[in-house]
Amino acid sequence: MIDKLVEKIKKTGAPIVVGLDPTMKLIPPQLLEAAYKEQGETPEAVAEAIFAYNKGLVDAVYDLIPAVKPQIAMYETFGIPGLIAFDKTVKYCKEKDLVVIGDIKRGDIGSTSEAYAQGHLGKVVLGGKEYRGFEEDFATVNPYLGTDGVKPFVKVCAEENKGIFVLVKTSNPSSGEFQDRLIDGRPLYELVGEKVVEWGSEVIGKCGYSAVGAVVGATYPEQGKVLRKLMPKSFILVPGYGAQGGKGADLVHFFNEDGLGAIINSSRGIIGAYQQEKYASYGKEGFADAARAAVLDMKEDIQSALA
Amino acid sequence: MIDKLVEKIKKTGAPIVVGLDPTMKLIPPQLLEAAYKEQGETPEAVAEAIFAYNKGLVDAVYDLIPAVKPQIAMYETFGIPGLIAFDKTVKYCKEKDLVVIGDIKRGDIGSTSEAYAQGHLGKVVLGGKEYRGFEEDFATVNPYLGTDGVKPFVKVCAEENKGIFVLVKTSNPSSGEFQDRLIDGRPLYELVGEKVVEWGSEVIGKCGYSAVGAVVGATYPEQGKVLRKLMPKSFILVPGYGAQGGKGADLVHFFNEDGLGAIINSSRGIIGAYQQEKYASYGKEGFADAARAAVLDMKEDIQSALA
Repeated sequence: MIDKLVEKIKKTGAPIVVGLDPTMKLIPPQLLEAAYKEQGETPEAVAEAIFAYNKGLVDAVYDLIPAVKPQIAMYETFGIPGLIAFDKTVKYCKEKDLVVIGDIKRGDIGSTSEAYAQGHLGKVVLGGKEYRGFEEDFATVNPYLGTDGVKPFVKVCAEENKGIFVLVKTSNPSSGEFQDRLIDGRPLYELVGEKVVEWGSEVIGKCGYSAVGAVVGATYPEQGKVLRKLMPKSFILVPGYGAQGGKGADLVHFFNEDGLGAIINSSRGIIGAYQQEKYASYGKEGFADAARAAVLDMKEDIQSALA
Repeated sequence: MIDKLVEKIKKTGAPIVVGLDPTMKLIPPQLLEAAYKEQGETPEAVAEAIFAYNKGLVDAVYDLIPAVKPQIAMYETFGIPGLIAFDKTVKYCKEKDLVVIGDIKRGDIGSTSEAYAQGHLGKVVLGGKEYRGFEEDFATVNPYLGTDGVKPFVKVCAEENKGIFVLVKTSNPSSGEFQDRLIDGRPLYELVGEKVVEWGSEVIGKCGYSAVGAVVGATYPEQGKVLRKLMPKSFILVPGYGAQGGKGADLVHFFNEDGLGAIINSSRGIIGAYQQEKYASYGKEGFADAARAAVLDMKEDIQSALA
């Protein structure tokens, strides 16, 4: 799957992943109103509006980008109906041939990580038939439990041609509280980065990159520079661009000299573009076109930073 | 909710939580067969068998124990049908007045943790009406992202009278890989333990314990001893007893002098008791009675260790 991701990045020229994180504040009001009219003001109606929102966005941008990253928390908020919308979103994006990165940040002891890996990247076999719980191509994984909490994901990646991105240095303000603490003179995130290299060493794709990537926030460009060198074969998923404060110029050092090795996520900056002054002329009805314009602007911002 | 947990521990005399982690190997075959007959060998059928299994277990032990801990990964494996079984299990346990600890190990950047907290411990309000996604009383939380990834959970705990258990020192073999690394001469888990105290300082219940507890594995009794002293007002959720190797005698130092402060989880040891030689006479049809016997034995093991 890392090969497919790299291929699609080359084809689109856009190392961009659109975060499908539909909060109540972002869902265009006309979609909510239409769903409420049918089903009342219920989680089921919100879930319907979420899917309509995602479908509109995906239809508008799928030819420009290699991948999407639905954040499962935004769906889990609404319980079962929300998760049904997550499932439908993943399936729809795959119909559009997008690589789907499930931002699920799971991680547990071995047997439990195995269950998560099967549910999100793998399958269960019943009566000789395969069933897939959710069907993401990649998942984000939390490393706090160490190797035996991550390895079951890697095993499923190898079996199913999937991938993971392990949290190394996250984009949030307090990420340094534990991640930056020095251990034998080096920050914890470097130790985690070294383990990412180790975990990924047996699942290197034809493209030269591993199925085990890393998450490093755009908000920490200096750390990105160090981690890029430390993990030369790991793709870096970079959140924090746009709404969280990361800029195009900050991104340069997340990439390798081949111009690859990183994929930049933007969520609110794209899916909520219609609410920004810059794209206000599209109006709420034009939310999908506004998202398309924002993707094109983001692509230009990154390309000129890399040039 | 910490007050309710303490009250129920006192009433039952059993600081025990039963882990409802229904894997395919544990579900009694007759329950699977019955469900397959109705619905074919499908995830929906497995989900039905899982709920029947949980219901049988809960009916057999609910008067003996204060709490249950469903591990959501075991349900997520089966996608939406699995999560419906999780939801039904949580609701059923609450009908039986059990405290429900959702073992979900979530944690993300602030706005995303807020979405998880709302979905599992809180609510969304639509049209003036409250909807709860899942309805656990406690959730387990991963601390890797630091304070701003945990605080949204604490906020919801304060608003909704709920609680969390933060991963401090996990029970798995490689938990030491990052958690034991020394920072200024002290292991990372101690730093996380100190943060648990800080995060919990404003949500202390009438019982004297905080709504913010910690997860510390039974497999690491020495570390448990240190962490017990470091976090005097934090309840410790202790996994790893039984199948993972922890014994009654290992548990003593997880408790405070008041005989409280810890709750010990057993999953396979209880729900899979009918598969053990010791309880083989119950047979697969007697899985629930075997679980009851195993709970009584576990209670005695802990009580004699504490005496």
